[in-house]
Amino acid sequence: MARQLFELVGTDDRRFSPYCWRIRLALAHKRLEAARVPVRFTDKELIAFSGGTTVPVLVDGPNRVRESWAIACYLEDTYPTAHSLFGGPEGRALARFFNLWTDTQLQPSVFQSIIGDLFQVVLPEDKAYFRKTREARLGRTLEEAHALRPEKLAAFKAALTPLRLLLAEQPFVCGAKPAYADYIVFGTFQWARMVSACPLLQGEDAVLAWRERMLDLYGGMGRGVQAFDDAA
Amino acid sequence: MARQLFELVGTDDRRFSPYCWRIRLALAHKRLEAARVPVRFTDKELIAFSGGTTVPVLVDGPNRVRESWAIACYLEDTYPTAHSLFGGPEGRALARFFNLWTDTQLQPSVFQSIIGDLFQVVLPEDKAYFRKTREARLGRTLEEAHALRPEKLAAFKAALTPLRLLLAEQPFVCGAKPAYADYIVFGTFQWARMVSACPLLQGEDAVLAWRERMLDLYGGMGRGVQAFDDAA
Repeated sequence: MARQLFELVGTDDRRFSPYCWRIRLALAHKRLEAARVPVRFTDKELIAFSGGTTVPVLVDGPNRVRESWAIACYLEDTYPTAHSLFGGPEGRALARFFNLWTDTQLQPSVFQSIIGDLFQVVLPEDKAYFRKTREARLGRTLEEAHALRPEKLAAFKAALTPLRLLLAEQPFVCGAKPAYADYIVFGTFQWARMVSACPLLQGEDAVLAWRERMLDLYGGMGRGVQAFDDAA
Repeated sequence: MARQLFELVGTDDRRFSPYCWRIRLALAHKRLEAARVPVRFTDKELIAFSGGTTVPVLVDGPNRVRESWAIACYLEDTYPTAHSLFGGPEGRALARFFNLWTDTQLQPSVFQSIIGDLFQVVLPEDKAYFRKTREARLGRTLEEAHALRPEKLAAFKAALTPLRLLLAEQPFVCGAKPAYADYIVFGTFQWARMVSACPLLQGEDAVLAWRERMLDLYGGMGRGVQAFDDAA
């Protein structure tokens, strides 16, 4: 197959990267198939051709694209007649805001809420690298970060407010139907549920109901993976 | 004139409401004229016909619409051939997220950063009402809230991160051209600069550069008001 998606991999073939999930769903949205290539955290050689050191990387015939937002834009521009990921220039501009909001306001607190569990599903040969790079990023040990879960979880729930209010009004972030902004933030929740039983969402919550709808998309693509389910 | 916009008013005819500014710019975007009717905080009788107690209220021929988001949607649906405020269903859905983000993540910390100054431009006959309702909302006196300015300003600056990153990449929130999401958050900055010298934005800041572009729109509509300018 001429199309390949390079994805992060953990123990038992877990493909938990939030950024890779964005692209898996974007490809499904565009009805595009891709072979999925697992990449360990320390497997930098495997993706050196991309010019970067992180996944996702998409190979599409002669084209190589890295970084989830760039890949989403590439797919939209290269396959414009298929289902739109953005719905036009204004939708793309606001999806970019939504991407930056997710990355800066949600991802860090989720990361710190699940890091203790995430470390358990990192492959043995990647653990030293993961610990070194993540402790440098956090400015504390993984164990110290894990101990902060209650406060990080509280910060996450406060930051989630506008999304919760939105999803009480409409079924998807992008309105009546899911599109790329839905995939952006779904990646965060899918990452969390694939590695941790930490209860990000509970009870009567419009975000939880939305996540269930997201898990059903494209033949249950999101549901068909090994995961913890915090929906009590 | 058959079209009227009811707007909050303070001392010296200041029309500072952030929600009313959203609609002033939305009307200009649609190239629609409206007579502007001042409403004091305690002038509830004047807008009782709307079924609510807050501005903005738009009267458009036989139609009465209240609440800024509802008015924006009304304008888009009633005048669909004029310049779009949203750019389609996905753009509207994401503008709604942006509206909820602004209202819950920016407005409260800006409100508490400027409340001491805001109180100074409330009309004398409205001051008792303003104090009572705002102190109930805040759970503290206006003076106690004003004393929290440094921490509220820090919270505001942290919450602003995704907007700052976005505007470093593109000239307007909605992309190459301004649209309703730009007007949503511009209202917050215009409100602040009309009542307070509190430095929300300083120095080399993509948000400040964007605000300057916004002030120039529609013949300098935003610039042509009495204001403090924190752009040093």
